Amino acid sequence: MPAAFQTTRRVQFADTDMAGIVHFATFFNYFEEAEHEMFRACGTSIMQRQPDGSIVGWPRVAASCSFEAPAYYDDLLEIRLVEMTVGTKSLTQTWEAWRDDKRLCRGELKTVCCTFRPGEAMASIEIPGELRQRLVAIGGSLT
Amino acid sequence: MPAAFQTTRRVQFADTDMAGIVHFATFFNYFEEAEHEMFRACGTSIMQRQPDGSIVGWPRVAASCSFEAPAYYDDLLEIRLVEMTVGTKSLTQTWEAWRDDKRLCRGELKTVCCTFRPGEAMASIEIPGELRQRLVAIGGSLT
Amino acid sequence: MPAAFQTTRRVQFADTDMAGIVHFATFFNYFEEAEHEMFRACGTSIMQRQPDGSIVGWPRVAASCSFEAPAYYDDLLEIRLVEMTVGTKSLTQTWEAWRDDKRLCRGELKTVCCTFRPGEAMASIEIPGELRQRLVAIGGSLT
Amino acid sequence: MPAAFQTTRRVQFADTDMAGIVHFATFFNYFEEAEHEMFRACGTSIMQRQPDGSIVGWPRVAASCSFEAPAYYDDLLEIRLVEMTVGTKSLTQTWEAWRDDKRLCRGELKTVCCTFRPGEAMASIEIPGELRQRLVAIGGSLT
Repeated sequence: MPAAFQTTRRVQFADTDMAGIVHFATFFNYFEEAEHEMFRACGTSIMQRQPDGSIVGWPRVAASCSFEAPAYYDDLLEIRLVEMTVGTKSLTQTWEAWRDDKRLCRGELKTVCCTFRPGEAMASIEIPGELRQRLVAIGGSLT
Repeated sequence: MPAAFQTTRRVQFADTDMAGIVHFATFFNYFEEAEHEMFRACGTSIMQRQPDGSIVGWPRVAASCSFEAPAYYDDLLEIRLVEMTVGTKSLTQTWEAWRDDKRLCRGELKTVCCTFRPGEAMASIEIPGELRQRLVAIGGSLT
Repeated sequence: MPAAFQTTRRVQFADTDMAGIVHFATFFNYFEEAEHEMFRACGTSIMQRQPDGSIVGWPRVAASCSFEAPAYYDDLLEIRLVEMTVGTKSLTQTWEAWRDDKRLCRGELKTVCCTFRPGEAMASIEIPGELRQRLVAIGGSLT
Repeated sequence: MPAAFQTTRRVQFADTDMAGIVHFATFFNYFEEAEHEMFRACGTSIMQRQPDGSIVGWPRVAASCSFEAPAYYDDLLEIRLVEMTVGTKSLTQTWEAWRDDKRLCRGELKTVCCTFRPGEAMASIEIPGELRQRLVAIGGSLT
């Protein structure tokens, strides 16, 4: 399947653990970094401070990953967005990490567009129309 | 539901991000730390170097989490094991993080007993009988 | 030298790297966690949101550490404050990590009491008088 | 001062803390990542597994940093090597992080060439001659 969006990520020494491989929780950071690069490609950011001091951000609702093979220090991974569903307020993305022609893992992030003030409760809001269009242009499917 | 096993975890400053809350990927570390404490309670460790230089360890096969409410700096969380299935070679655990009487998230870790040498391929092995008994004594169900 | 303040810290699996030891930068987090525990022991917190939305916090001015011996997964370390100088606006602390009777490293943190709003410039302020007294009671020397 | 070597580093969301800035300990990872990129530019790696199963690596002896201004999410930093001393067995590097024409911090890493087996004691060795030449070619001074 061709990726809707992809970035490369060098495995850093601090990403590894004493088993000699990338720590499993670190793959969620790899997916997140790629997601944020996708937002940059859409001309926006996942954290936007508003003039009134509030923030529009994208807290996680769910995250999951299946691990198929380990990644090692110095690997140059491809992080690929293989599926994305653009809801009214939420975004569901499926990401994969590849080294050459081997898939190492496949995970899903579900995130919701929210407005909040630091340290206070978050309220979900509709994804702004222009961003929805850009996410669809990258390869997202509307629901 | 009473927890089969539980630990407490103070939220540290470095666990937070600029949204003022614990970064979502960090909850997987909280679950892992509690899992390792459970292994200590079983009188063993998740990384055991063998006399021949090989290691018996527990790489992840899958991890998932649903996030219901944020955790904040200084929170004293309870990390609770609410379900565990002890297979022949694998272990599936359901963990929850609570602050007082509020559940913040619920996740699942699936891990496989393996033998390997650092930097080499891993091979799954049967969970040693004595450990199986201890995991069941803590509250695990056999499959 | 007797410690002015000390905590214990279990080395977690995710703290290690592929060299099989605690990653050097992680010791700064160990020192920070112990420092924050010391603030709790003084009845306060290193991050205090004020009624007007501003924050009183303690950004770092300098950090250093000499590494003498490695720490390993599962080690139960003692993190000891061996020296502290309480200035008008700044705090300089010397911390050590020990495993049994072996010192593993010794580092210094210099931090300044500041007021700021998230994402905006910070301004140093005098350490509140009551906190100064408590820091001295723990073993800090005034300058 | 012109840099002997430099890389760029995007500040990631997970690098920030609730103060809205990059956590101080993370700058040591930025320096380390740049150091490892420098080793790649020298045609080698900081972790080399030998045929006999031992490893040639570069554990830290000391690390320090002065923090002058904060870094924020999304910043594209330049990480510059501004000084390097190549000893017989050790390497001392001075790194700086810059955002545009503003220096954010300046730190030093001292590291020693060692041979070891995972989980066992480390022994320092002389830096291989060819690598010394390459480090000097990049801009290191011999001692």
